[in-house]
Amino acid sequence: MQKIAINTGEEMKELYNSAFVLTDSNLERIYGGLLPKTRFVIQAGEGNKTLYSVEKAVNAMIKCGVKRGDRIAAFGGGLIGDLTGFVASIYMRGIKWSFVPTSLLAMADSCVGGKTAVNVGLIKNAVGAYNMPDVFVETKYLNSLPQREFESGMGEIVKMSLMDADLYNFMHGKFDAAEAVKKCIKLKSAIVEKDLTDNGPRRALNMGHTVGHAVEMLTGLSHGMSVLIGMKLEIAMLRELIEHNFFYEVQSYLYKYIGKMPLNLDAEAITVLAMSDKKNSGGISVMYPQNIGDIREVDLSRNEFLRLLKGAM
Amino acid sequence: MQKIAINTGEEMKELYNSAFVLTDSNLERIYGGLLPKTRFVIQAGEGNKTLYSVEKAVNAMIKCGVKRGDRIAAFGGGLIGDLTGFVASIYMRGIKWSFVPTSLLAMADSCVGGKTAVNVGLIKNAVGAYNMPDVFVETKYLNSLPQREFESGMGEIVKMSLMDADLYNFMHGKFDAAEAVKKCIKLKSAIVEKDLTDNGPRRALNMGHTVGHAVEMLTGLSHGMSVLIGMKLEIAMLRELIEHNFFYEVQSYLYKYIGKMPLNLDAEAITVLAMSDKKNSGGISVMYPQNIGDIREVDLSRNEFLRLLKGAM
Repeated sequence: MQKIAINTGEEMKELYNSAFVLTDSNLERIYGGLLPKTRFVIQAGEGNKTLYSVEKAVNAMIKCGVKRGDRIAAFGGGLIGDLTGFVASIYMRGIKWSFVPTSLLAMADSCVGGKTAVNVGLIKNAVGAYNMPDVFVETKYLNSLPQREFESGMGEIVKMSLMDADLYNFMHGKFDAAEAVKKCIKLKSAIVEKDLTDNGPRRALNMGHTVGHAVEMLTGLSHGMSVLIGMKLEIAMLRELIEHNFFYEVQSYLYKYIGKMPLNLDAEAITVLAMSDKKNSGGISVMYPQNIGDIREVDLSRNEFLRLLKGAM
Repeated sequence: MQKIAINTGEEMKELYNSAFVLTDSNLERIYGGLLPKTRFVIQAGEGNKTLYSVEKAVNAMIKCGVKRGDRIAAFGGGLIGDLTGFVASIYMRGIKWSFVPTSLLAMADSCVGGKTAVNVGLIKNAVGAYNMPDVFVETKYLNSLPQREFESGMGEIVKMSLMDADLYNFMHGKFDAAEAVKKCIKLKSAIVEKDLTDNGPRRALNMGHTVGHAVEMLTGLSHGMSVLIGMKLEIAMLRELIEHNFFYEVQSYLYKYIGKMPLNLDAEAITVLAMSDKKNSGGISVMYPQNIGDIREVDLSRNEFLRLLKGAM
């Protein structure tokens, strides 16, 4: 069972108890003065989630004398979490790590479950490991979050709401970020506990990601917004499998968060990128909601995928 | 229990059943024509056991469309095994791998136990993972092994012989490489099975490596020769802990394989490098034989280590 503390005020103590802290350049500007001295700053931006950054971080850790029995910590959003978790997974064949998520996306989603990774070339999360962090969520850090990042977090929350009636109802009332974070952590923890390595129920969390990852790479839109667009397109692709009324209900729900779609998406390019997705075994795997809380998977051939995607655009 | 087939003649079938094969430039020259087309060649040499080579291999695997359910294979010595195993550990968060070792070192030692790693900067095996391969040992490949590499393998075999009376006696008779490989695999498998992650009995295998890794980095001598020199120096450092007759017996046994020691080793430089060793928790850990089959561990402060090492030179 993963240790996740929410708004207990222990996050700084945890950072100071770690041998080494990773953060990004945006957070360094705002919180640098409060953080421990043995920290390493990664330039913000998905383009830096690379093996080259891993090497720089490992070199800094060697210089600081981080040992096999030590613990390192991440202070940041999804990028810093993914990178720190991966570094912890491989440093001296694996050490422990803690995560203080500062973005809505990282709090509600990526801090749970221990998936870590970096990109290689154009392929998102091409290399990675499973390594569960102790998590210290403090929702006060949402106050310093840029709007684009807040929207990105909303994308994953909206996705999760299709998996759970309680969260779905909650999302139709007045929004409360701290409450949404708590509900998402509870929901994702329950799913991950049943399926650590992504072969069973955890695959439902990939909803929107087959098309979404490609959209993110091609447009540079935020991860969450790309997932929302991915869901909208995937659901439109599979509309014949989805009950009529529910289809329109979901599309109008997604519209609230996406607004007008970006125009010039290239179906061929999305298909090529979707083909290289980790989730695939032979064809292209797509998850879709049959109903709230009932997520199904289909496996499409490349040609089928392309035809349906063109039809959905 | 790790699957290790010895001289069953199945190794080529295994390579052809893999989605992707890694090998090195020396082996490519000799065996390239026999290997599957979907292979990637790493320039031979410890200097290429880097995250940069990992990135190149991962890119090649993505291009070949290697999937999460696929298996990759290593055809080569310790370097290729370490690199392939590490790539398999992190590619899409972990896939399976097979190992056809072609060097004496890899057959007798590194193919067993699933330790994988690459170097970062000057630090050997700074990042890595545990990922057990299926192994297909064919001792016929020893015929194409350069002398330096053969000697390197002997280093680890001599080390293991101090851990086991049967192997120690065997080493005092007429040498038979295939038989030595079998005995070493059996011995190491038994140790690894008791201690997968290097916290207990497996630490005995680190004998000679605290000083040896540093010697290897500073001199460019082969791994096995460096381990032999490491053992000779470590045992001399701790001679007060070792029974008089046994001390001389081991020193003369090691002399048979080392011959005249290289002259200009720098005790200060060795100490600095030994300090950064993964095995350490606070001081510097050194393993030494109290008797054949009885390996002990001491933890030395930096100053103690340096003083004893100077005394041993």
